[in-house]
Amino acid sequence: MLLPESIQSLITALERLPGIGPKSASRLAFYLLRASEDISQDLSTALANLKVNTAFCQECFNITKAGRERCEICESPKREDSIVCVVEEALDVVALERTAGFHGKYHVLQGVLSPIEGIGPDDLKIKQLVERVARGGIQEVILATNPSMEGDATAIYLSQQLEPMGVKVTRLARGLPVGGDLEYADQNTLLRALSGRQAMN
Amino acid sequence: MLLPESIQSLITALERLPGIGPKSASRLAFYLLRASEDISQDLSTALANLKVNTAFCQECFNITKAGRERCEICESPKREDSIVCVVEEALDVVALERTAGFHGKYHVLQGVLSPIEGIGPDDLKIKQLVERVARGGIQEVILATNPSMEGDATAIYLSQQLEPMGVKVTRLARGLPVGGDLEYADQNTLLRALSGRQAMN
Repeated sequence: MLLPESIQSLITALERLPGIGPKSASRLAFYLLRASEDISQDLSTALANLKVNTAFCQECFNITKAGRERCEICESPKREDSIVCVVEEALDVVALERTAGFHGKYHVLQGVLSPIEGIGPDDLKIKQLVERVARGGIQEVILATNPSMEGDATAIYLSQQLEPMGVKVTRLARGLPVGGDLEYADQNTLLRALSGRQAMN
Repeated sequence: MLLPESIQSLITALERLPGIGPKSASRLAFYLLRASEDISQDLSTALANLKVNTAFCQECFNITKAGRERCEICESPKREDSIVCVVEEALDVVALERTAGFHGKYHVLQGVLSPIEGIGPDDLKIKQLVERVARGGIQEVILATNPSMEGDATAIYLSQQLEPMGVKVTRLARGLPVGGDLEYADQNTLLRALSGRQAMN
């Protein structure tokens, strides 16, 4: 039996999402068919509006409402201008904001250097970061790219660009995650935790 | 930081889907934001059309194109009228059709008896099945509900309704799954495989 086209095209569209295979896609499609109309309608509307209503901040390249030139954080008078935290993705800004421990501004690279995937410095918002620092007023740049091979390479590249400009460049600390278990920590993490050990107050 | 409303409403809509938590929802939303426009547009259109273009067959309650009274299988002259396979969901029809081993017709109950969830016989298409059998022409009813507690209870209930009507009532065989491993089979499956053992030809 062929499925009706309305279902089949939904399954095909869902399968294109990352982490959703053919089985999950058909399970989701049949769930939506049985569920109340507004679940699929809300999702449909949200998807249709996604790109129309979203823009990138022209200062930090974080996502923001369409029609705004600068995002809420860049426009906030409460945030320090002198410290900029560089992250890979807008999701990282959300994670850092959740800590409520950072009161500076951000710069979203929109990716990470990856020779394997053919992503070089020009594909990221690196030039814009250098220009931002060159304009002055920034004293510290925190490199908060992921603690991965690509994230580290990007951080090294950025520090080479920024340090000659006389700005302080720092990197997020490495070590044991809070609530983690020393026994299960991998070798590299443990090594970093050792070499980065701090004095007890 | 608050996410722009366009993203937040997409995350909220995605979170309502089964098996998608807050983390996967935001990962999917940001993926869609970065991905090409047509991925989100296709999904949006498919969702909007889902309920509009889908109907239930008035004979077997399988899903079919809107505007059709009976589904392809019920209308096909190649399928035997005398044998009806009773399943829980439309997805089960897809699974059985994939085997290419059944040439009769179907009856989709659209659920399963479940006292815990408050689903009784009147919430399923049981009355319609009894009426279909009463109309005559059906010689065998295969009960293909899931081999679960609820599926078994539903099968027992159905056989009590149908057997007095003089129709042959059968149930799908239980036993070891093909390609499975005896060592890893659970107790009940092994017990069923033993008691249902068949003569070697």
